[in-house]
Amino acid sequence: MVERITGGITAPAGFEAAGVACGIKATGLDLALIVSTPPARAAGIFTTNLAVAAPVVVTREHLRRSHGTTSSIVVNSGCANACTGDQGLALARAMATDTARTIGCSAEQVLVSSTGVIGVQLDGEKLRNGITHAAAALSRDGHEAAAEAIMTTDPWAKEAAVRATTSAGVFHIGGMAKGAGMIEPNMATMLGFLTTDADVGPDLLQRALAEAADDTFNAITVDGETSTNDMVLLLAGGRSGVRIDETGYPAFVDALHTVCRELALAVVTGGEGATKLITVTVTGARTTAEAKQTARAIANSPLVKTAVHGGDPNWGRLVAVAGRAGVAFDLTHARVRIGEVELFGDGQVFADREPAAAEHLKGAKVAIGVDVGVGGTGTATVWTCDLSAEYVHINADYRT
Amino acid sequence: MVERITGGITAPAGFEAAGVACGIKATGLDLALIVSTPPARAAGIFTTNLAVAAPVVVTREHLRRSHGTTSSIVVNSGCANACTGDQGLALARAMATDTARTIGCSAEQVLVSSTGVIGVQLDGEKLRNGITHAAAALSRDGHEAAAEAIMTTDPWAKEAAVRATTSAGVFHIGGMAKGAGMIEPNMATMLGFLTTDADVGPDLLQRALAEAADDTFNAITVDGETSTNDMVLLLAGGRSGVRIDETGYPAFVDALHTVCRELALAVVTGGEGATKLITVTVTGARTTAEAKQTARAIANSPLVKTAVHGGDPNWGRLVAVAGRAGVAFDLTHARVRIGEVELFGDGQVFADREPAAAEHLKGAKVAIGVDVGVGGTGTATVWTCDLSAEYVHINADYRT
Repeated sequence: MVERITGGITAPAGFEAAGVACGIKATGLDLALIVSTPPARAAGIFTTNLAVAAPVVVTREHLRRSHGTTSSIVVNSGCANACTGDQGLALARAMATDTARTIGCSAEQVLVSSTGVIGVQLDGEKLRNGITHAAAALSRDGHEAAAEAIMTTDPWAKEAAVRATTSAGVFHIGGMAKGAGMIEPNMATMLGFLTTDADVGPDLLQRALAEAADDTFNAITVDGETSTNDMVLLLAGGRSGVRIDETGYPAFVDALHTVCRELALAVVTGGEGATKLITVTVTGARTTAEAKQTARAIANSPLVKTAVHGGDPNWGRLVAVAGRAGVAFDLTHARVRIGEVELFGDGQVFADREPAAAEHLKGAKVAIGVDVGVGGTGTATVWTCDLSAEYVHINADYRT
Repeated sequence: MVERITGGITAPAGFEAAGVACGIKATGLDLALIVSTPPARAAGIFTTNLAVAAPVVVTREHLRRSHGTTSSIVVNSGCANACTGDQGLALARAMATDTARTIGCSAEQVLVSSTGVIGVQLDGEKLRNGITHAAAALSRDGHEAAAEAIMTTDPWAKEAAVRATTSAGVFHIGGMAKGAGMIEPNMATMLGFLTTDADVGPDLLQRALAEAADDTFNAITVDGETSTNDMVLLLAGGRSGVRIDETGYPAFVDALHTVCRELALAVVTGGEGATKLITVTVTGARTTAEAKQTARAIANSPLVKTAVHGGDPNWGRLVAVAGRAGVAFDLTHARVRIGEVELFGDGQVFADREPAAAEHLKGAKVAIGVDVGVGGTGTATVWTCDLSAEYVHINADYRT
């Protein structure tokens, strides 16, 4: 049984967190600290972007050197520390060293993460002061401030947590995420930090994270962009005493999936300028991969996203995008539905049903279904948001 | 020598045109007719979208059956005749038959084209009346009305024409195009109709069209969408008496390229909600194909397009897109320039130059240059426009 609880990343036993303002952003919290006692097992998945930011380089290195043993995650917002050369790399390392010194562990046991503007150097002194303050503020109640401190243009903080009652025992999983723009599958396309008091070995932990992310963090898109800084980290501290082996693995992944899905959907719902959550489901494709490719093409189509924004059941755009998605498609057997309303199928147009579809589009949650008509068993779901004039305003003026 | 002249598609001898209102659109001209006397050689390139509209099916069929001999092109706007099943196919055929009967040729010698809303049936009677009126209105002055009649959300009609003085003799090439949204390379991603009074054999004509389109019609993008109806047709009537063989081919392609480029750039400049023409040039890639892939990724990036719209020299977004374009990229040797201003290179950020780049972004023509840093010789240029709130308004409300 998986129950939703409050408490975010500090819901699992053994974790404390804090969020403080250290002056990297002009206003608001901008530094988050998570500490695990004792050190946790860590797993991570990272951006596929080849322009990798310094904190991604350092965090991967530390995971490797520490063999996945982590005491702390330190995150700043307001500055991505990307495209910052050797100086940026040194600052990312200093961020870990300063945290390690403050909380008492080795630098390799600290994972670092940044989000914000690209190409600007971090201020090492502000960071150092922030880390000192955050360490002093660490508590079981710090999850909210931490979730707030990793936001950039996000409209709200994103937290989730569950209590899982399984045959192996009771454990907890918590998480927080940062999204807004630059969200696109494969991966990590966002920052996500997950904690659990289950006791999970390194291989199983990495496998669980990859599996849970596949149809959650890797199945959302706001604008098709993948950032230089994206990562999702998962720490398993073991304080529940519940050991997860192959037998307990499915229940663990199930609970993890619940948290990842809630965070991923929150990221899309809080997408820049978003007013609607759109679920795109593609069926009838030759393979799952082809279904996902079509679903992503639809989810990233500006014409589809603006039509949904305008409440227009313009199924013709869905057909046009499915036809150009680069995978098998048969117009004579394709089907399109908006909500439960089939508007096109087997070459027939059901124009009289458009008012019903328009009614569905008025809601905050929109479902789009496309069968690509080639009779395959491949299906996939991708989540996205609508495209509003507000998205343009946010991104035209982001740095000004 | 290639000189720009007026006259659009009727600038070459032997062509007449007309544009009339037949009531498919609520207001304005919506039917264009082009007639070649004598019948012309024809070449065509078509959408890569698998959801192909009826007129594309019929035009391909007619080109094949007539061995590329064409008397007329008939085009309607306001209705795409896409996703219209057997009835739509019959109406596309009727469009050709009605035109053939009216002007006196075989149906195979008529090419048909449509643009507008998907999934709505054409009104055969309106079309028939329109064709009759258009045939009566045919003239050498009809080019402007024809160019206007193929518009949908285009802000203005797009025409171009040249007189080419070559060693083979003097000939003319004219053209008109329809763009707005749904513009993306590979191909045809728009409607384009080209005419020439040069005498060109079928193979050479097709080769010339493909070559001229490659870095013009196939190198522009508004929003990454490829429509169900896109085609570019080229008719060579031969009335100048100038025979183009392999020797004269380069000069012919050069003149054709000039017309295609002018039309393609007009399509981008008139993109939905566009306020700026953006030229994206990618250098240093392993191959031309990789350079083009990166250039297209940048040109289709909503984050890049909104930044340009907002006048923000946000070179970090350019790096981030180049890094996720799916081809070789090396951050340590990459370079980014806006206008002539290098903002990032060899890992160095030149923040003090941003005001100069911002100044460049104030203009109506913006140049972006990205060297992907892998030391190759692959280069490519793609044209696009900025992304404005107006794009969202147009596409949220297109059918309402």
